[in-house]
Amino acid sequence: MTLRLDASAPDFETQFKTMLSMKRESSPDVDATVRDIIEDVIARGDEALIDYSRKFDRIDLAKTGIAVSAAEVDAAEAKCSKEQLEALDLALERIAAFHERQRPADLRYSDEAGVELGWRWTPLDSVGLYVPGGTAAYPSSVLMNVAPAKVAGVKRIVMVVPTPGGHVEPLVLAAAKRSGITEIYRVGGAQAVAALAYGTATIAPVAKIVGPGNAWVAAAKRRVFGQVGIDMIAGPSEVLILADKTANPDWIAADLLAQAEHDESAQSILITDDASLAEAVVAAVDRHLATLSRKEIATASWRDYGAVIVTKNLDEAVPLADRIAAEHLEIISENAEELGARVNNAGAIFIGGYTPEAIGDYVGGSNHVLPTARSARFSSGLSVLDFVKRTSILKCDASSLLAIGGAAVTLGKAEGLTAHARSVSIRLNALGA
Amino acid sequence: MTLRLDASAPDFETQFKTMLSMKRESSPDVDATVRDIIEDVIARGDEALIDYSRKFDRIDLAKTGIAVSAAEVDAAEAKCSKEQLEALDLALERIAAFHERQRPADLRYSDEAGVELGWRWTPLDSVGLYVPGGTAAYPSSVLMNVAPAKVAGVKRIVMVVPTPGGHVEPLVLAAAKRSGITEIYRVGGAQAVAALAYGTATIAPVAKIVGPGNAWVAAAKRRVFGQVGIDMIAGPSEVLILADKTANPDWIAADLLAQAEHDESAQSILITDDASLAEAVVAAVDRHLATLSRKEIATASWRDYGAVIVTKNLDEAVPLADRIAAEHLEIISENAEELGARVNNAGAIFIGGYTPEAIGDYVGGSNHVLPTARSARFSSGLSVLDFVKRTSILKCDASSLLAIGGAAVTLGKAEGLTAHARSVSIRLNALGA
Repeated sequence: MTLRLDASAPDFETQFKTMLSMKRESSPDVDATVRDIIEDVIARGDEALIDYSRKFDRIDLAKTGIAVSAAEVDAAEAKCSKEQLEALDLALERIAAFHERQRPADLRYSDEAGVELGWRWTPLDSVGLYVPGGTAAYPSSVLMNVAPAKVAGVKRIVMVVPTPGGHVEPLVLAAAKRSGITEIYRVGGAQAVAALAYGTATIAPVAKIVGPGNAWVAAAKRRVFGQVGIDMIAGPSEVLILADKTANPDWIAADLLAQAEHDESAQSILITDDASLAEAVVAAVDRHLATLSRKEIATASWRDYGAVIVTKNLDEAVPLADRIAAEHLEIISENAEELGARVNNAGAIFIGGYTPEAIGDYVGGSNHVLPTARSARFSSGLSVLDFVKRTSILKCDASSLLAIGGAAVTLGKAEGLTAHARSVSIRLNALGA
Repeated sequence: MTLRLDASAPDFETQFKTMLSMKRESSPDVDATVRDIIEDVIARGDEALIDYSRKFDRIDLAKTGIAVSAAEVDAAEAKCSKEQLEALDLALERIAAFHERQRPADLRYSDEAGVELGWRWTPLDSVGLYVPGGTAAYPSSVLMNVAPAKVAGVKRIVMVVPTPGGHVEPLVLAAAKRSGITEIYRVGGAQAVAALAYGTATIAPVAKIVGPGNAWVAAAKRRVFGQVGIDMIAGPSEVLILADKTANPDWIAADLLAQAEHDESAQSILITDDASLAEAVVAAVDRHLATLSRKEIATASWRDYGAVIVTKNLDEAVPLADRIAAEHLEIISENAEELGARVNNAGAIFIGGYTPEAIGDYVGGSNHVLPTARSARFSSGLSVLDFVKRTSILKCDASSLLAIGGAAVTLGKAEGLTAHARSVSIRLNALGA
């Protein structure tokens, strides 16, 4: 049953805590299998990729080749409608424009002691993008991962995508082409992650692996972390909607269900200070559900994890929103801006009734890869910063070393690191200090 | 034997690759033990902390209390010398000044379609700093972790430090006090990490845990990741020095050993285009080693992982430096600036003969928490960015939703996410589109 809470009820705090600690996902323990697959790819390279693809994807890469050819990509693109390609291009243009503003700046300055300090940002050399196969292959996800990497200046971006039975969504290949990917391999699962991390004869290794995937992919990413960088491991997705009496219950219901249709462990929560709006939304959800194509998934998500919380006013909702730390936060209220400014923990905030969360999934411009499962308390969505790294720079001359070196010698000795102290004092001595 | 490589030798590439893939650390597998400890702390809270501290740290927290009192901190500070406290203050002031420049900027703008976009950075609510006990308790590490958190605006910063036999380094407590920490607990190991992540009656949980630690601490951080954020898991430390004939071999030797004294799996590498400098450095290392207090550790590190590589010129060294991706890179050469500008992968670069790496460890101002074990290929040192998170903001009005909404409906349908499409089209329909 969808949870119904009243913030003024005496047991509210207990019930809210229970909701927060609800475990929404139980991943199968595939770690041992994944370890074996990774070791096999390290040992046998392409041969292992061919074997696993025969077994898991029912495709013979020895015949098709591991790489997807430019001609195949062109053919896929030709299958897409003009309307789809135009939508893709609009999305890409808007995403790129937003992320252009995220380029971090280098710095170099001298301080009073004469020490030169600073940092320099450089793009990662190469990035691998994992794209899930089957129906979970989302062209929008390709755009959201590639655009910031391109803006960052990453030279080599590689895409891997499983092609079960030889099938790949044409619009996924079109999205890859239009976002500038020229290196695509038809491999998936832990074996694809291993190939990206360690390399095979066909696939050169990358510096970082990004993109969503199933339990096998997630376990493989955890395992290769260190050998390469990885992005976050995404958990089940969620939306929190704060709404007052000015909101349209039908629109809210649609937004709650857009989240719920993702998968059965998605979570949709409404907090409102208007009890009659709450009732109207619950009724509208039931109406919408009847005609949804992904009705079973959305029904299960709404039943098991959906929640409607009534508060005295929306001020009361702000600390609750911070504790929920939702991936997506919609605020539909007279003072939406002001409420949004007071929320600290949210992956993205969608302000006002004309900003359904789905706009952010596709064409808003901001990134749809956002912190899930309450991790907005300590992390951020995907950005250009995920595709660059910072090198700090330090430069002393004789005079500035004389100014600050003595303190380094003192601290080195205090820490028992006498070679540290000596590496400074040997210079200070030479300078006659 | 310290590795000696000649870049013009026919087998150089093979040997260099072997050096890169050398595994310098084998952590004991403590994961199962750590899992049990975490579960016990979740179940029994403070009682578990008391039991583990009796067992591992030979201290009875039931008598001493779990929290370190302000009086104890003051007493510890009083034990430090004036010279030490002044060195600490100089370091803190310089570190804070550098990190002040890392505050990221918020953004808000409207684009041509009339969509409002932007982001807002907010500090993490609370952070836990793990400080190792015994001789590895470094006051400089306290400063390096706390200063960026303070600059970021983190309100609650908690320190945990094991006190084996009741002992804690006075300068560590002084560093905590002077950097503004008022909440300190005398617990360590996996139990301290568990307490920070899940909370106990005494210790309220935090949003992120940072700081170095042994294998138990590292395993615990990996396990609680997701429940809370964590910083990087640091591997063995390394320095790479590029030097030409203008460099002082004695100073280089001191710098190589400052790295080697950290621990037996530290790595010190010299690349030079001057074969006679290489010989002089090797001889100087032997001379210095004889008189070092941490002679055994430094000898083992230099013997097992040290390397001296002679190249034709330093241009040849740049791609090698990128492949090594050292935590610390010193460049001592006539054209140090120009060479440094061409290196892509390094945690920090120390330019010129008057910038020994130890300056960066203590008083330079930049952070000494840097990516180890080749991870500078894809990650950066600790900064203010590790203590803030970004919330993206999106706001459409009726007109801008009309401008871009159609493309979102098209993409939602193409991805089979019809509730996504409906959440947009229901509004477009209401607007008469």
